Amino acid sequence: MDIESIADKREINAFAEGFRHGLPLPAGMDPHFEESLRHVLDTPGSLVRPRIVFQVATAYAVADSCAKQLAIALEYFHTASLLFDDLPCMDDAAQRRGAPCAHVVYGEAGAILTALALINRAYALSWRALAGCAGQVQSGALDYLEQRLGVGGLLYGQSLDLHYATLPHDRETTERIACGKTVSLIRLSLVLPAIAGGANAREIQLLERVAMCWGLSYQIVDDLKDVFQGAAETGKTGARDLLLDRPNMAFAVGIPGAVKRLTHLIRLGDRSLKCVLATRPALGFLAKLRTDLEDELVRVTQNACATTMWEQP
Amino acid sequence: MDIESIADKREINAFAEGFRHGLPLPAGMDPHFEESLRHVLDTPGSLVRPRIVFQVATAYAVADSCAKQLAIALEYFHTASLLFDDLPCMDDAAQRRGAPCAHVVYGEAGAILTALALINRAYALSWRALAGCAGQVQSGALDYLEQRLGVGGLLYGQSLDLHYATLPHDRETTERIACGKTVSLIRLSLVLPAIAGGANAREIQLLERVAMCWGLSYQIVDDLKDVFQGAAETGKTGARDLLLDRPNMAFAVGIPGAVKRLTHLIRLGDRSLKCVLATRPALGFLAKLRTDLEDELVRVTQNACATTMWEQP
Repeated sequence: MDIESIADKREINAFAEGFRHGLPLPAGMDPHFEESLRHVLDTPGSLVRPRIVFQVATAYAVADSCAKQLAIALEYFHTASLLFDDLPCMDDAAQRRGAPCAHVVYGEAGAILTALALINRAYALSWRALAGCAGQVQSGALDYLEQRLGVGGLLYGQSLDLHYATLPHDRETTERIACGKTVSLIRLSLVLPAIAGGANAREIQLLERVAMCWGLSYQIVDDLKDVFQGAAETGKTGARDLLLDRPNMAFAVGIPGAVKRLTHLIRLGDRSLKCVLATRPALGFLAKLRTDLEDELVRVTQNACATTMWEQP
Repeated sequence: MDIESIADKREINAFAEGFRHGLPLPAGMDPHFEESLRHVLDTPGSLVRPRIVFQVATAYAVADSCAKQLAIALEYFHTASLLFDDLPCMDDAAQRRGAPCAHVVYGEAGAILTALALINRAYALSWRALAGCAGQVQSGALDYLEQRLGVGGLLYGQSLDLHYATLPHDRETTERIACGKTVSLIRLSLVLPAIAGGANAREIQLLERVAMCWGLSYQIVDDLKDVFQGAAETGKTGARDLLLDRPNMAFAVGIPGAVKRLTHLIRLGDRSLKCVLATRPALGFLAKLRTDLEDELVRVTQNACATTMWEQP
């Protein structure tokens, strides 16, 4: 293991600890509720979002403690959205993050209360993280949070996703849903800490573009993984998109079309990324993230070449 | 109709308008989602909570616009909690506020997204309402909001309620659940606007006591209504507590016991109310609320005398 991966591992462990202890559970709680919360808090995901939040915040000189609060807040919002998404009335998934879904173990109501507890804490951590900002920066950041999570953001994507069966199964619809469901949280991860750190309008615009391109790319990678990989590798119930008629770029435009779109989006993101890095060199870690995304693309397309199961429509 | 009830009616209409338009729906929303939101926003409840919030805030000289935002925010939290509560995995109710429940018309997933939209807006309105407060007042108010809604407040009550079948069906358990589920929002309505208006520790303590007594009383009145009245009168599915083995003070200690407890709580609240009114005469409207509560008690106990269906256990 090289020094970089040891540092990475340490950083991930620190965020896993932050995730685990970021929502204090009072004594005398209902034991079922406590167990359900511990189940979720003890099973963090890849923690890629909080690491991005923290690094962007640091690049904009946001205080360490505020950057950490914001990072954990956004991971709680993300986790809550997955808890809802996995419910029988939505995706009806059985596995998440390598463990049984909360609703499978603690019932639907238990999973809903757990998600609401994460959400309540996430809003509280967000405004605490932003409490020290100047008035206009603070209100701008909180407005942005509301918009990305609300009826024009994450919830917009979720609602379209629910009625996907009645919508055209084309690229436009697939991307509208991804813009709401996936990109909203990627935008929050990249842009919100920059707003909190007082980024100017031009920087925010560039980061928005990077977030849009990467968010859509990330979703396509996820779609391709759903097609090629089983539960063992992704840690969640596999090949569900086909089974449940869920939006998936590979079904909308074929596998080669999805790979082409992904490559285009990564290149498009590169243009904005270049300008961002020229303006704010402290965001250099984004170049590494960009490489990781391309590595994923290569890995997934190798899978695509190796399989004969799916063909271009 | 006397002048007072005309003024009341006007005030209720104003809050109904605020409730209806407090969550702007952007163009291009998913039509199912928009319909579900409109269904809920067009069916306000009694609006007693926002009226209390507004009047307490006004008594503490909180600016009108902030008082209104806070009032609508708390009504959105309350409405969202009812949307979750009515789901098949919780109370499985069919009617709410004189209309079919959202989950009946728009499905469980639709009702959940609607509740989350209200919650997102409610947090945003809350911090906007509190944005102008001094730093310590603001953080105190936001901490209080987090506590009342979180794992030690509303969610605590909901989680106990879910597992009521496994708990002792006594007064203590019934009140612990009511403290979480009902009293949390009454406390928010009475105390949060006072905190926002810079009330001192003594006033907050007194208002807390009034809120506890009235919140528990309000729950007992609701429990007795569930026993005596059908769907026609309460606007929700009737006699569900018995059917679903839900906590109800009348089942825990018998109807005379419940009425006795209610009378005791009202008298206990009177002591703190007297001190509050001596300190802050602008809160005079609370005396009227206190009378309304006693009127309800009289009305319900008259029902109790008129029926022979239920007997003391």
